[in-house]
Amino acid sequence: MTRIFVLARRPVGLPTIDDFDEISKNDEALGDGDVRVEPMVLSVDPYLRGRMSDARSYVAPFEVGGAISSAGIGKVLESHVDGYRVGDLVRGEFPWATSLVAQASTLWKLPVDQDVPPSAYLGALGMTGLTAYVGLVVLGQVTSDDEVFVTGAAGAVGSVVGQLARISGARVVGSAGGATKVEQLAKLGFTAGIDYRSSDDFAQTLRAAFPNGISLFFDNVGGSQLEAAIHQMKDFGRAVLCGAISQYNDTQLPSGPRGFEGFVVRRRLRVQGFIVSDHLALYREYLSLASQWVRSGQLQTLETIVEGFDSLPSAFLSLFTGGNVGKMLVRVAI
Amino acid sequence: MTRIFVLARRPVGLPTIDDFDEISKNDEALGDGDVRVEPMVLSVDPYLRGRMSDARSYVAPFEVGGAISSAGIGKVLESHVDGYRVGDLVRGEFPWATSLVAQASTLWKLPVDQDVPPSAYLGALGMTGLTAYVGLVVLGQVTSDDEVFVTGAAGAVGSVVGQLARISGARVVGSAGGATKVEQLAKLGFTAGIDYRSSDDFAQTLRAAFPNGISLFFDNVGGSQLEAAIHQMKDFGRAVLCGAISQYNDTQLPSGPRGFEGFVVRRRLRVQGFIVSDHLALYREYLSLASQWVRSGQLQTLETIVEGFDSLPSAFLSLFTGGNVGKMLVRVAI
Repeated sequence: MTRIFVLARRPVGLPTIDDFDEISKNDEALGDGDVRVEPMVLSVDPYLRGRMSDARSYVAPFEVGGAISSAGIGKVLESHVDGYRVGDLVRGEFPWATSLVAQASTLWKLPVDQDVPPSAYLGALGMTGLTAYVGLVVLGQVTSDDEVFVTGAAGAVGSVVGQLARISGARVVGSAGGATKVEQLAKLGFTAGIDYRSSDDFAQTLRAAFPNGISLFFDNVGGSQLEAAIHQMKDFGRAVLCGAISQYNDTQLPSGPRGFEGFVVRRRLRVQGFIVSDHLALYREYLSLASQWVRSGQLQTLETIVEGFDSLPSAFLSLFTGGNVGKMLVRVAI
Repeated sequence: MTRIFVLARRPVGLPTIDDFDEISKNDEALGDGDVRVEPMVLSVDPYLRGRMSDARSYVAPFEVGGAISSAGIGKVLESHVDGYRVGDLVRGEFPWATSLVAQASTLWKLPVDQDVPPSAYLGALGMTGLTAYVGLVVLGQVTSDDEVFVTGAAGAVGSVVGQLARISGARVVGSAGGATKVEQLAKLGFTAGIDYRSSDDFAQTLRAAFPNGISLFFDNVGGSQLEAAIHQMKDFGRAVLCGAISQYNDTQLPSGPRGFEGFVVRRRLRVQGFIVSDHLALYREYLSLASQWVRSGQLQTLETIVEGFDSLPSAFLSLFTGGNVGKMLVRVAI
């Protein structure tokens, strides 16, 4: 029997545990080209919230009653496909299930002979890292002259953004919620960190952190932090918008950054939204660079690992209350 | 004696006639490299509102008690400078004065042997036209596949944007205030026009005009029209922000486009603000192209000409109540 978490209903506002159901199914037989995989680690990500709604998703929304799925690392349990052997480690988009059947062509085999933990291929060496790279390097075109501000800096993407900015020689300040996370930013080599929770006047704190203005802004949060950043951009500044976790559970259209048009015109700002799945062709290039940085210790893979298949829904929910440092992963099997 | 309009005080909100003063001065003597110019036509432009404030200007604000200045065409009255003869027509940044002394090196001599009216070099063949070109062609990279939306479409810049879009083969819809202006858009070859004043639900009207979404948005207006456009952008749409006339007289930071971050990320939008003065190096290229379009009749130079030096302040004020079709000019001398 396979245990599976499905979407019980579409969440309204902040999701709750009752939006998930656990079901059981008999194991499927393997078809042509299929392999059976046991997920070992599953990623829980803020963007999944969008897929739980039917309106706000940029990829197909999850169906009510259908499995939740996310990126995972698994072990091949059964295979008749050339090149996939029992015990091989693979990465794919997996249902939240104790085992699954997948077309081998949709899976990516982890490099063997590796000296990094497999879970890194979900974080700094996976789509999370590529997201940071696409936004900061490809679209943001970071240089050593930049003054970079990144929100959600202790999160999965933000923690890589800050390190890539540091590697590029830029000055980089990150915002995060709470003193523990801000201490983490220092360890990752951020120039400075801002605890947005302890800041009475975030806009003023940001002005103090960037007296000459922000030249490159990488946003994961949206809302009031986005507004404050837009107000503190330098002439010709670039803003790269990756996500807006502060708004994912809003039930009404959130208000926009005040004075937006005026700042964008007068300061000649460029604002660019992006989604990593449009840029998968860059993964090989990124992986080659980032693997070296990880091996040399320049790029740390920051993870929060929650134990147990049962914890998948609660680990996901905790993303919206700041429960993770770095990439949030659930270890569902050893 | 020279008559000059100066800024009497910094306007608060919508400017009034009392924000201007007229003074008289004795004519200045010519220094080395100077010529004396009599302005014939002066341009009045929404961006001058920014220069009347001390905070919101991207170029030096006007001084209280100092002359208002704007682009103009004038006639050389007196010159000891090689290459500048009495009667030559020149373009420059002129004070709102009945005569002025300028360094010849700051002036641009109009092409002789021309078959277009001199005032066109303030409009479609001047900075106004270059503004449209930079935004639509250089930054917006318009192609014949585009579905273009331009606000303030019957205005100086907007009327050129629509024509350049039509020349590029794109579908182009413009918004303007009132039936007369919308009729004008048809004459200029816009695909369609929207009268934003008669539209009960502008967002709904815009959705109907762009059932497949807007791929390229050129904004002169800001506010609710910007918000509606952002909500109706296609995936990978580009928005080029040139101005926000609906907000120039706001005394508080205006609210921003609701749901902005969400739309920008999910639809991978690019939003780019610009100011034409950063792109003057492109003027020669633009003038060469646009002169041919004007001569062949593909590009019309739309103007509203107000008569008389005394009318300068009131002509400027009328910009904010929709008083102009095309470029707003004041003929201050024959």
